[in-house]
Amino acid sequence: MPRINLNADLGEGYGPWTLGDDAAMLAVVNSANVACGGHAGDPDVMRRTLRLARENKVSVGAHPSYPDLRNFGRRAMSLTPTELENQLAAQIGALIGVAALEGVRISHVKPHGALNNQACVDRALADTICRSVRAIDPALILLAPAASQLVAAAHGAGLPVVEEIFADRAYLPDGQLVPRSRPDAMIHGAEACLAHVRAMLDAGALIAIDGTRIPTPIGSICVHGDNTEAVAVARALRAGLESAAWTCVGLPELLTIAA
Amino acid sequence: MPRINLNADLGEGYGPWTLGDDAAMLAVVNSANVACGGHAGDPDVMRRTLRLARENKVSVGAHPSYPDLRNFGRRAMSLTPTELENQLAAQIGALIGVAALEGVRISHVKPHGALNNQACVDRALADTICRSVRAIDPALILLAPAASQLVAAAHGAGLPVVEEIFADRAYLPDGQLVPRSRPDAMIHGAEACLAHVRAMLDAGALIAIDGTRIPTPIGSICVHGDNTEAVAVARALRAGLESAAWTCVGLPELLTIAA
Amino acid sequence: MPRINLNADLGEGYGPWTLGDDAAMLAVVNSANVACGGHAGDPDVMRRTLRLARENKVSVGAHPSYPDLRNFGRRAMSLTPTELENQLAAQIGALIGVAALEGVRISHVKPHGALNNQACVDRALADTICRSVRAIDPALILLAPAASQLVAAAHGAGLPVVEEIFADRAYLPDGQLVPRSRPDAMIHGAEACLAHVRAMLDAGALIAIDGTRIPTPIGSICVHGDNTEAVAVARALRAGLESAAWTCVGLPELLTIAA
Amino acid sequence: MPRINLNADLGEGYGPWTLGDDAAMLAVVNSANVACGGHAGDPDVMRRTLRLARENKVSVGAHPSYPDLRNFGRRAMSLTPTELENQLAAQIGALIGVAALEGVRISHVKPHGALNNQACVDRALADTICRSVRAIDPALILLAPAASQLVAAAHGAGLPVVEEIFADRAYLPDGQLVPRSRPDAMIHGAEACLAHVRAMLDAGALIAIDGTRIPTPIGSICVHGDNTEAVAVARALRAGLESAAWTCVGLPELLTIAA
Repeated sequence: MPRINLNADLGEGYGPWTLGDDAAMLAVVNSANVACGGHAGDPDVMRRTLRLARENKVSVGAHPSYPDLRNFGRRAMSLTPTELENQLAAQIGALIGVAALEGVRISHVKPHGALNNQACVDRALADTICRSVRAIDPALILLAPAASQLVAAAHGAGLPVVEEIFADRAYLPDGQLVPRSRPDAMIHGAEACLAHVRAMLDAGALIAIDGTRIPTPIGSICVHGDNTEAVAVARALRAGLESAAWTCVGLPELLTIAA
Repeated sequence: MPRINLNADLGEGYGPWTLGDDAAMLAVVNSANVACGGHAGDPDVMRRTLRLARENKVSVGAHPSYPDLRNFGRRAMSLTPTELENQLAAQIGALIGVAALEGVRISHVKPHGALNNQACVDRALADTICRSVRAIDPALILLAPAASQLVAAAHGAGLPVVEEIFADRAYLPDGQLVPRSRPDAMIHGAEACLAHVRAMLDAGALIAIDGTRIPTPIGSICVHGDNTEAVAVARALRAGLESAAWTCVGLPELLTIAA
Repeated sequence: MPRINLNADLGEGYGPWTLGDDAAMLAVVNSANVACGGHAGDPDVMRRTLRLARENKVSVGAHPSYPDLRNFGRRAMSLTPTELENQLAAQIGALIGVAALEGVRISHVKPHGALNNQACVDRALADTICRSVRAIDPALILLAPAASQLVAAAHGAGLPVVEEIFADRAYLPDGQLVPRSRPDAMIHGAEACLAHVRAMLDAGALIAIDGTRIPTPIGSICVHGDNTEAVAVARALRAGLESAAWTCVGLPELLTIAA
Repeated sequence: MPRINLNADLGEGYGPWTLGDDAAMLAVVNSANVACGGHAGDPDVMRRTLRLARENKVSVGAHPSYPDLRNFGRRAMSLTPTELENQLAAQIGALIGVAALEGVRISHVKPHGALNNQACVDRALADTICRSVRAIDPALILLAPAASQLVAAAHGAGLPVVEEIFADRAYLPDGQLVPRSRPDAMIHGAEACLAHVRAMLDAGALIAIDGTRIPTPIGSICVHGDNTEAVAVARALRAGLESAAWTCVGLPELLTIAA
């Protein structure tokens, strides 16, 4: 039976504020990307999220970001390579520290927001990210958008890597996401998302809006839980994949089996 | 030859601001307590401090604090035990993360400021600190004021512990520091500090202002580097100890030899 | 026709995070207490809230707090009187600054959370608050819990003051709120809240759970909009008051008419 | 007798950290640009600085910045015009609020760091700044680099403006400062600074390194106090100007006399 991973960004609250329905999503996904203070997440939010992840037997990754709570890490920043290394190491380290209190192991890293978007097309930036991750623990899996410069950088650094696709986003012929400003950026509804994902899994390739295929090994699907509908789509997607005989597993298990 | 450790609080800048002369102190001490974002220290300050410590072959510890940059961690805060665990784990973890970029191992932890003062007399607080440190790494050495509740808590938690005295502070008969508000709180000048320290080392005890002795194993001396005079005192203290045949070593070496 | 004011705490988001349904509440209340960076609120959130308030012809006050985003200003802090003066002046000043961009005048101040609770029973703290408010503008109205030390302090400082009651909270015989930890702290449902409020307005007094009456001039009712039900209660309360022939007005209008 | 103003950036500490010798500079300059929380300055630092300024009878301006303590406002940020308006209004408003506690009037505004540098050459950015300043108080004087887009924008907005030159910086033929990366960027020593300033005052023009003159009304000279030498240069500059029969006055007095 083929294996696939479902991942979601979680723990994106701060102090009194919350975002999305983490409890619901943890019942759907196999791996959680947990905010670690860059775009969201304080030590108490991290702890609660890590506990929930443990209780749901979900594998956990760090979701570091440009340090910018106010803009939720969505705005490009110009840090020097050393400053970026330092930021990432401090954020990932903080999450590893809090995770120790719950006996949870951080098994992957997925960059967030503007940092992730830039690193998909900027090899030097992607290399800096991989250098910082590798220094912390060379066994950390990089979870990165399929066919991106981040994937290439992880290969270059000798980091284990899993390539992800987005269930609800359309692709351009060059493998980039269709920008949200365009009307055809989003895939709407559970059925369409499932069809979109299954087509790419079956093809072993990104499939762009014009039909272009970019062959690449797809290991994970990123789903969102911002609102009630998004959670329902994620749930339907998992059910659809399982009835199509896919087994949904955590990231460490995905790589162990592959090896 | 008897062995002793000299430690100092370093890396206590933030962004464009600095405090004390870290480079000078790193030539004097054997161990550095590095601020990790609670009362001072951002990831870039941490990195620079860790690099300097490595270059000076000084052992490095985390110096976590109540999260309060504005008051430099000097004001009591009421966190729940869980919140305090989370804060300490996030701060220590952040420093461990950044230290990985320099290939530096964090070998001890020393609480800062108001947190340290409170934990010296509050066993429950001291236990919470030790629980958080132990969860991160049970081999971390707790560097704690001699004969304090922090020492008792470390013993209870099975953490390695080194007891420190202050070169420039007088003690009360109960082992507490004479409050800074009192005129006799401070020991002034290199000669007086050296005499104060040597008397306690020779006695194997804290010696209070009224002559009371509280026997306790003394492993380290805390020195300060806030200003030019303080650095000179620290330097003279080390020279004085070495001419009295003490060998000054890092904390891991101190415990290895003791074992 | 008798006049009354309805007020609510608004603009309590930060960066990407929001809290409550400000748009719905602005259609119900006459006056908005706008967070100004202490417990919530950044300059962009302030601006959006001020614009909405202007569009809804709602009078606007500053809602300053202990500087503690992480705990939403709900935890007691020990600032010196000077530090508290400085914090309040900076927060109120920031809101006045942003309000100028919308041509909105800040006409009242209502302290938030732990600061407000403490100042209700601590006259020295209440005096410090009034001193800071008065320095900024002696025409600012203090909106304060009825029969509290804040009211007394405002009288002492010569500040205009409006006394508020809570629609959904029960009172102790000494005029304090029944603590939330007790099962009888809250009044549930629109009908009960309306009856609670009308009884106090008719009596011109706080009415405690044991029937004790504390006569005091009631000028405003604080309502909440944390969730859909709370907004519905607020809306029903206003409708109920208006059918009982009360006219709901903004705070400046309330005082102008009274004068 | 001709009149001139000396200004300096002050209050650039934060929490336990300080920068420069404010007390010394306040004895030299006529006007202080006080950090208001963007690149430095918390409410307590603001209060202390404002008190010192009052005691020294120095006129006070707000020195707002991109919100970036970590980089001291020295890095370009991309805020939308509305976000920048909001930031400036909140910062200036906060200082006005704290100044009220000292009975001090804020009479000018001088943008800081990267924001100032960008606005010197970007008219749209300069217009946004002036729009925000004008909304707060159309009597606020804009203190801006001579012959810059900020000056043009202030004229356009009808704001009073005073043009400043830098005592220790060389100019390019287009009126921009020689970048610090070039060896000829700085004027060294009190004598050279005084000659540089006097030449420009006598010419009524910026004088570039190649001799190019850009005629412009010069009203103020910016001096620095980062270190002991800088303070000595500032002091010598003032003495030199006074012996050359210039009268050094505060910004409001400068404009009153001119009018």
